[in-house]
Amino acid sequence: MSETNNSGKQPRLIYGIRPVIEAIEEGLDIDRIYVQKGARSTVFQELWPYIKERGLPFKHVPVDKLNKLTRKNHQGVVAYISAVPFGDLEDILPGIYEKGETPLLLLLDRLTDVRNVGAIARSAECAGVQAIVIPENHSAPMHEDAVKSSAGALLRMPVCRVKNLQDAIHILHDSGVETVACTEKTDGAMYEVDFTKPMAIVMGSEEDGISPAVMRLCKHRAQIPMMGNIGSLNVSVATGVILWESVRQRRTNE
Amino acid sequence: MSETNNSGKQPRLIYGIRPVIEAIEEGLDIDRIYVQKGARSTVFQELWPYIKERGLPFKHVPVDKLNKLTRKNHQGVVAYISAVPFGDLEDILPGIYEKGETPLLLLLDRLTDVRNVGAIARSAECAGVQAIVIPENHSAPMHEDAVKSSAGALLRMPVCRVKNLQDAIHILHDSGVETVACTEKTDGAMYEVDFTKPMAIVMGSEEDGISPAVMRLCKHRAQIPMMGNIGSLNVSVATGVILWESVRQRRTNE
Repeated sequence: MSETNNSGKQPRLIYGIRPVIEAIEEGLDIDRIYVQKGARSTVFQELWPYIKERGLPFKHVPVDKLNKLTRKNHQGVVAYISAVPFGDLEDILPGIYEKGETPLLLLLDRLTDVRNVGAIARSAECAGVQAIVIPENHSAPMHEDAVKSSAGALLRMPVCRVKNLQDAIHILHDSGVETVACTEKTDGAMYEVDFTKPMAIVMGSEEDGISPAVMRLCKHRAQIPMMGNIGSLNVSVATGVILWESVRQRRTNE
Repeated sequence: MSETNNSGKQPRLIYGIRPVIEAIEEGLDIDRIYVQKGARSTVFQELWPYIKERGLPFKHVPVDKLNKLTRKNHQGVVAYISAVPFGDLEDILPGIYEKGETPLLLLLDRLTDVRNVGAIARSAECAGVQAIVIPENHSAPMHEDAVKSSAGALLRMPVCRVKNLQDAIHILHDSGVETVACTEKTDGAMYEVDFTKPMAIVMGSEEDGISPAVMRLCKHRAQIPMMGNIGSLNVSVATGVILWESVRQRRTNE
């Protein structure tokens, strides 16, 4: 009912309704679930509440897609276990304060490119970021390629998957963490933001930046100064640049 | 004797000994030449001086490789035209000073990953870098994928291809441009380097950093401060971080 990954340590792909329910009950970190379009059997009725209640990312796909994922009898459902252990934002925040650290978090708004997300996680680990927050949907899959691109950072640093970033921002604000949107749509240069405060940096998608609903909630906006004509950076480069502005400020204020 | 690229503007691949010699004589920017192993015909004797005198990057390959590049009669030689116009470092430097600008250059020591080099060129354009310098051998091919990854930056900014970076560094020093190696092998943080001076930043390969021969010639060494356990960044991220340290210093000193 499961296929192991290359390292053989942990099943990577789980298929069949019962095994997927069991994996969820066991508390395995599910990266995503593929469900056959139009599947409505009685046993399916049993799976739905698990997916819905725990807010697991799922996608309806044609049966052909499932047949490509596994040749075994999948009963219309295939789940991928995350290669990355997920953490809970509300559990992690108090721990940061208890260790005497100043929170520096990174929120990724719909970044879907695995290589970019990997490079960003690597940069985050090197900049002292304590946790990365991603939304449940429209995020890069947390599989082995992401771990590899991150040089292992995704295994060292908590990734918090939340229903949506708006909820996460409310939690952060309630915990005394300010938020800064990295965006070209502002006059304020990143040097004007005080990164020595508890801070969460929000980076937007490669296609359309930070979504308006998320942008509205951010306390600050920070622009990376630009020369030339292109006027925008690759998102993993932009993340590195703003992270090291925070490193510089925190270093000066040690 | 040539195949056009997708845009149909310019032949991308040239094959056959005469056509390749003609392309060289016409002054087309040759990205690289593939020469059949063991080819020693009389007509080949004619091609060699062109390759050697102009220091064009070439590679000996089995005939199978050439047959995969083109089904036409290649006579043992296939050349790729660069998608990027190459510039001459000694021509470009005086122009920078004449425009009243302070040189900020980027030297890439054996960076072979096309996506990284593309992202780096994009960052360079956005940071006000006036030219990128690459060595003839062990550099990423300057083809359409590199241009695409660079968001067009490689078409907007001169790329100077030199026989080796050591020669380029001597030219830079003679022209009043200082050099800084971005490396972990130093105690000096990047904040201690004065980027308001004419400066060329040297970035090393993903595998083994800056080569010792190049490192020895650099006037300064600069480290990006690191927290965490991984201790090294993706090279395109590292380039962005050090470029924006120079942007920050130059901005402050306007």
